[in-house]
Amino acid sequence: MDKRLRVAMAVGDVGGISPELAAKIVADPSANADDLMIFADRRILEEGAEIADVEITIPTISIDQLDGPLPEGTFLIDLANCDPANVKRGEASYEGGLASVQNFRAVLLAVNAGYADVAFFTPFNKSAMRLAQADYVDEIGFIDATIHPKESGREFNVLDEVWNARVTSHIPLSAVASRITEDRVFDSLCLTDKTMKAAGFEAPRIGVAALNPHAGDGRNFGTEDDDIIHPAIERAQAANILVTGPVPSDTVFVRATRGEFDAVMTMYHDQGQIAMKLMGFDRGVTLIANYPFPIVTPAHGTAYDIAGKGIADLGATRNAVNLGRKLALMDLGGSRDACGEALSVLVARALDRTRIWEAA
Amino acid sequence: MDKRLRVAMAVGDVGGISPELAAKIVADPSANADDLMIFADRRILEEGAEIADVEITIPTISIDQLDGPLPEGTFLIDLANCDPANVKRGEASYEGGLASVQNFRAVLLAVNAGYADVAFFTPFNKSAMRLAQADYVDEIGFIDATIHPKESGREFNVLDEVWNARVTSHIPLSAVASRITEDRVFDSLCLTDKTMKAAGFEAPRIGVAALNPHAGDGRNFGTEDDDIIHPAIERAQAANILVTGPVPSDTVFVRATRGEFDAVMTMYHDQGQIAMKLMGFDRGVTLIANYPFPIVTPAHGTAYDIAGKGIADLGATRNAVNLGRKLALMDLGGSRDACGEALSVLVARALDRTRIWEAA
Repeated sequence: MDKRLRVAMAVGDVGGISPELAAKIVADPSANADDLMIFADRRILEEGAEIADVEITIPTISIDQLDGPLPEGTFLIDLANCDPANVKRGEASYEGGLASVQNFRAVLLAVNAGYADVAFFTPFNKSAMRLAQADYVDEIGFIDATIHPKESGREFNVLDEVWNARVTSHIPLSAVASRITEDRVFDSLCLTDKTMKAAGFEAPRIGVAALNPHAGDGRNFGTEDDDIIHPAIERAQAANILVTGPVPSDTVFVRATRGEFDAVMTMYHDQGQIAMKLMGFDRGVTLIANYPFPIVTPAHGTAYDIAGKGIADLGATRNAVNLGRKLALMDLGGSRDACGEALSVLVARALDRTRIWEAA
Repeated sequence: MDKRLRVAMAVGDVGGISPELAAKIVADPSANADDLMIFADRRILEEGAEIADVEITIPTISIDQLDGPLPEGTFLIDLANCDPANVKRGEASYEGGLASVQNFRAVLLAVNAGYADVAFFTPFNKSAMRLAQADYVDEIGFIDATIHPKESGREFNVLDEVWNARVTSHIPLSAVASRITEDRVFDSLCLTDKTMKAAGFEAPRIGVAALNPHAGDGRNFGTEDDDIIHPAIERAQAANILVTGPVPSDTVFVRATRGEFDAVMTMYHDQGQIAMKLMGFDRGVTLIANYPFPIVTPAHGTAYDIAGKGIADLGATRNAVNLGRKLALMDLGGSRDACGEALSVLVARALDRTRIWEAA
């Protein structure tokens, strides 16, 4: 692997705005996208270029050419796995879901084996992916099942004004409280601090959201804030992390918007997402961290309602790639797969439908 | 009781902005405050007038004069229960808490006995109230213990653009899921519909927040949204209530801000408060409903940091009184205390420290 950074990109759901975003990021001069290794069907990217009304002239190699020298700069690996003629725009489809799963898996295997440094994808549609792979739950589960990391990933939501990290995510609300342990909160604080430092914050100021209303209101409405979260914060402070809290969750984001915190760490999914979406998170970036390489995607979805109109905004996609590049320059800990498998083998594995069903 | 509306007002915590707000609402010509029956220490209201730099000339009666004819228009009942000289501004104090508890209790007993039609208070500080009454948990518990209603109250948070009702409130997060039952959700929807109609909405459109992330994501992250909330919504729809949901809670407020819903019903405290506070709920109104009379207060707190500066904004206080007046014109169901006790007896009970300790 050469020293130049390479961003492996999976084109997401073909029914939505992913094809046009993919074409736009290649063509956009301000995106500096001269380092992309794109995994998709050639016809999808061409359709995206037509929708976005941009011209893209990049080398394309087929899956038979993967073991020769790879092109310099941005190029496409044509997985020949999705004919746009079979997909109805604006809908979740088996074809679209299957291509998403295959593109994503190829990117993960390629980056994990050292063929690129950043894993990046344009929006997926989970329903479509489940049509192709019934047990697809979320990105993190899929990544874990694909690259078998030592530790599972953690999602960060990144806006210009504030980052959001969370201790628990895609679980029922009834299961949240029992999953909040001192170690988990402490570990999340350490990971947030480490990841934000890698992204350029010298000493990120983290506000921690309380679990209970009014932070438990002096043990009237729950004891976890005093007994679990508070000690975890003290441990993090002793480790020189700039942490404040537990702060009642209905004021922690208000304080963050006033510039008091660089990040808010929430205890559960909606505690952060309610705030971030109101603050305009659709222009933000989702970062999946705690892996040996950064995984990034725009925070917005497939936007079936505007698919094919060429009006999809490139901002979040551009920010995602840039954040990925920044993080790829830092040592994120962990180690990638060093078994030296050929790219052709990895891609064949990603395309193998039997393996896909096995993966999760 | 005469036919003219009367608003009973408890002046809240003296350490904060309550005294100046009380003076301002009396003096402000746009507040039309010619119907207030104010319960407070005279010296506190006078201090508030000085801070706010307003002149107020209203009749004052002492607690010995309560059984004679009451003045027309706005007047003060001097409870002589708090000397401002004993209170440090900007701090929670026993004196301030005791006066808050007494003023509030006097208002509740007076309105419940028919001496006024709306219960209204300027901000309290719960910590101060607990210094005076250790088992003070929240307003609803205190109201229930004071007037012994048939059913407990429910809090609504009211912004110009959207109302927020909730199924559960001041309980630990770990207890939320088990309290979400089909009947509770259905009852909350009926109460929201009824209360908003009383406030002037012809047919309020209610968006219901899901309990689990992504509304349970097809039972992947919890089953309550499908098994409990959805059937409750169908029952409400069958009762001609305009309900939508369960909507993932990270998008329901975004949709409300776009004008899609008049109210959002949330399943737990922070689910609504995170959004409302980010939307600027400090300019909003808190309504405690499900009682035979409306209870209203500005949504913001005592603002110790700006107390005494005369800069407290009157907007939310004015909106609170106006909402109370509107609701007092409607039949809210239930019945007040008809035992015909003299106002002097009720006020003596409110001031009796033994009784206060008994109350909750």
